Amino acid sequence: MSSLPLPRGIDTHRVLELIDPDKDADGLHPTNLGRLVLRIAEPVESSLPCTPKGIIELIERHGVDLAGKHVVVVGRGTTVGRSIGLLLTRKDVNATVTLCHTGTADLASHTRTADVIVAAAGVPGIITGDMVKDGAVLVDVGVSRVTDPETGKSKVAGDIAADAVERSSWYSPNPGGVGPMTRAMLLANVVEACERKAGIR
Amino acid sequence: MSSLPLPRGIDTHRVLELIDPDKDADGLHPTNLGRLVLRIAEPVESSLPCTPKGIIELIERHGVDLAGKHVVVVGRGTTVGRSIGLLLTRKDVNATVTLCHTGTADLASHTRTADVIVAAAGVPGIITGDMVKDGAVLVDVGVSRVTDPETGKSKVAGDIAADAVERSSWYSPNPGGVGPMTRAMLLANVVEACERKAGIR
Repeated sequence: MSSLPLPRGIDTHRVLELIDPDKDADGLHPTNLGRLVLRIAEPVESSLPCTPKGIIELIERHGVDLAGKHVVVVGRGTTVGRSIGLLLTRKDVNATVTLCHTGTADLASHTRTADVIVAAAGVPGIITGDMVKDGAVLVDVGVSRVTDPETGKSKVAGDIAADAVERSSWYSPNPGGVGPMTRAMLLANVVEACERKAGIR
Repeated sequence: MSSLPLPRGIDTHRVLELIDPDKDADGLHPTNLGRLVLRIAEPVESSLPCTPKGIIELIERHGVDLAGKHVVVVGRGTTVGRSIGLLLTRKDVNATVTLCHTGTADLASHTRTADVIVAAAGVPGIITGDMVKDGAVLVDVGVSRVTDPETGKSKVAGDIAADAVERSSWYSPNPGGVGPMTRAMLLANVVEACERKAGIR
């Protein structure tokens, strides 16, 4: 079981490729990600990336139907932004997805039209109230270390500002939201891999 | 060298996985597509999917800078829609990408804001003039067989209607546009794979 990010000086790409795709708990082996690219309607019979899988499970379990929704993903990191669109645009989820990033010319023009925003930029409070439409679903996956002005201590901050949360119909904070879902999906991937090996899945 | 679509009754996924990723001229082996998912800024040292690679080369060679542009891709097929966003959102291209498909609630609301539309739906004339902003760049990759009303003969039709073309600043038709680029990229992939094997790339 790998854990990203790996320490500096270690070639992440090389390590990922050394994992047996059949034992890939993270769902980050290139062969497994590529299988996901190629499958639009068919089941993906290998591990899916944990955080994207956890985000979709979290949203759908709370009764938000993603079919036909416009999801704007902010941030093109490996663990969320580069792969969640591949899951969201499969026929079983059927969302329309826009991927924004540091090269996006006018971020607010995209987020303002979004039914759902998945914020994974790692920029504290980058999603502000004026960038969100009323009733939007907000999922914060941004992780930044900031200094708390009251206590002077270091703490984790998300991407979504408080005034954006006020306009949302449903909100998953960070910390306290998606993190445990990632770990739950990691365990689900292990169980599913065992079931496939035992021929009972 | 594979060629998609394969005849009916043949499992495309199984055939693709039997190709040696180092000899994958199409750039459609899952391991190679997955490597592309994982690489945002670093060079991808394996074959890239031919049609997406050809589309980007075609646009950029005609002097259209894609950095900061909003590209709307219509259609989630394996050879274009599922993979072109992975190339367009890499740092070396740096476009913002929306993937629309048959499950998209309001297609026109997305295409109307697009700087560039890549139409790969396979629905003749699905992109009409009222769905396009003035000066948009239009790339037709849709392939449909229709009957010519004048001759009664079968012919290939693209996704982009004539009134949409009138509003565009630049247009690549189909047939007559991307097709030969796909084949050029197929040959480029072969040469690059040979160079990698010989240690000169």
